[in-house]
Amino acid sequence: MFGKISIIGCGLIGSSILRATQEKKLATKISVFDKSNKVTEYLRKNFTVDICSNVHETTKDADLIIISAPLSSYKEILLTIKSTLKEGSILTDTGSAKKEVNKIINNLNLKNVNWIASHPIAGTEYSGPEAGFASLFKNRWCIISADKKVAEDKIKSLENFWSKLGSKTKLMTFEDHDYVLSLTSHLPHAVAYSIVRTAINKEDKFKDDVIQYSAGGLRDFTRIAASDPLMWKDIFIDNSENILKVLDNYSKNLNEIKDAIKNKDSKKLLAIFSSTKKVRKEIIEAGQDTDKPGFGRK
Amino acid sequence: MFGKISIIGCGLIGSSILRATQEKKLATKISVFDKSNKVTEYLRKNFTVDICSNVHETTKDADLIIISAPLSSYKEILLTIKSTLKEGSILTDTGSAKKEVNKIINNLNLKNVNWIASHPIAGTEYSGPEAGFASLFKNRWCIISADKKVAEDKIKSLENFWSKLGSKTKLMTFEDHDYVLSLTSHLPHAVAYSIVRTAINKEDKFKDDVIQYSAGGLRDFTRIAASDPLMWKDIFIDNSENILKVLDNYSKNLNEIKDAIKNKDSKKLLAIFSSTKKVRKEIIEAGQDTDKPGFGRK
Repeated sequence: MFGKISIIGCGLIGSSILRATQEKKLATKISVFDKSNKVTEYLRKNFTVDICSNVHETTKDADLIIISAPLSSYKEILLTIKSTLKEGSILTDTGSAKKEVNKIINNLNLKNVNWIASHPIAGTEYSGPEAGFASLFKNRWCIISADKKVAEDKIKSLENFWSKLGSKTKLMTFEDHDYVLSLTSHLPHAVAYSIVRTAINKEDKFKDDVIQYSAGGLRDFTRIAASDPLMWKDIFIDNSENILKVLDNYSKNLNEIKDAIKNKDSKKLLAIFSSTKKVRKEIIEAGQDTDKPGFGRK
Repeated sequence: MFGKISIIGCGLIGSSILRATQEKKLATKISVFDKSNKVTEYLRKNFTVDICSNVHETTKDADLIIISAPLSSYKEILLTIKSTLKEGSILTDTGSAKKEVNKIINNLNLKNVNWIASHPIAGTEYSGPEAGFASLFKNRWCIISADKKVAEDKIKSLENFWSKLGSKTKLMTFEDHDYVLSLTSHLPHAVAYSIVRTAINKEDKFKDDVIQYSAGGLRDFTRIAASDPLMWKDIFIDNSENILKVLDNYSKNLNEIKDAIKNKDSKKLLAIFSSTKKVRKEIIEAGQDTDKPGFGRK
């Protein structure tokens, strides 16, 4: 249980944290800020918490500060709140890339503030505060990263917070986080954006047919490619090094399939497709999906 | 309502047709054949229909013959059954590529048999007769293709059959079918196979982490990449011309994203990601998916 919790940025993730924190009574005071007037108006209408019109106020005396704003806004936010941060408080975030943010924060030389990054692997293809819900983090992983100098009890305290929101937590270095996520999330998004752009082309006379018969695989990609564009362009820029590396490996694998198709190499294609079939079982065993037949079904 | 219906190949699709045809009482007699002993044994244990030990018997006197076997087996099946096909009967299939099959059938010069291709866009990531179920085709599209010389009433009769299984039907030329499906289904599968091979690499020390945190996008691809390898290698070979063309366009789109990442071009990335967001709305409006937030959720 924290004294004051401050949430900076109240979209899908921030508003879900707000809802869950209220519901579970995890703070004596909750203070929120969002730079959008529209979001602030929504918050005023729907929540009874402290809604601030500037970011200083929100963070003043806060014991836990959560930045759930786009990665590209961190620097400005941090420069603004730097001087008002309470000694011994915990500063965290919810971003999908960590290494660059960590550099920024280390360069700011925050005194006596415990920077511990969080990445709740939770979300939907929708954005904005109206899309949030209290159970968003339930049974989801939250990856936590911190420098070695951060005190154990502060990390425990943040892990405890996420556990109370329903998440399972896992400690990982900033670098490992960015590499693993480049494979599990950033690569799939790059691919989904490309595939939707390829398949659905305004100038193609079959555009409507492609949409009509998209249940054969394509529609699952359109969901991923509908994710928040602003958030994703930040992730791609922040984690560019890993993403470019995995995209190169990906292109090699795709070219292998292309060559096998060109050569009508049945044996090779069968070997490729058989190798990926096994992976599905491991995903299900890891509890990351159900074994219910779902492909192409509503 | 048909007299005798013959089903050749009784995996996920064939056994689902069998189940639905029985349930809806769409034939006076149903006869099935599968070249696998294991499948035949399963059928004998679970169905009371006529289960044949050779493909001739199955098709003899049949009014509707449905081939639901891998594309690469069509030629052998057709050569074997050619002489026993009943005059005026309808020969159809359930394959995902049409142009090459159509060539084979035209070359065989089947006399007085009405060849009308079917492609039910229905399936799961599972295969085999135990994975089938009677409602597999409910509310799903079935694309039907036929030469101009085929009589209207025969086409109507087949459309009616699929409607009774719960499907919506759509007439399309063989060529258009193969192009549209290369975009909606074949490209997504090629991409899914490549992404799973890239992300989940046995030699990567983070392999287990990648599986553990796969809910951020990757796991949706593992479902697609778990589809039947044998079926898919046949599709890729049969529809190679279209698939190679769309894969080239796809690589161009992916390279555009790669270049934007390399150049840290925020504006370009934002434009790309915003363009794909709109598509999702059209997919939902076309009834191809629900608007329920589902990404990354169980």
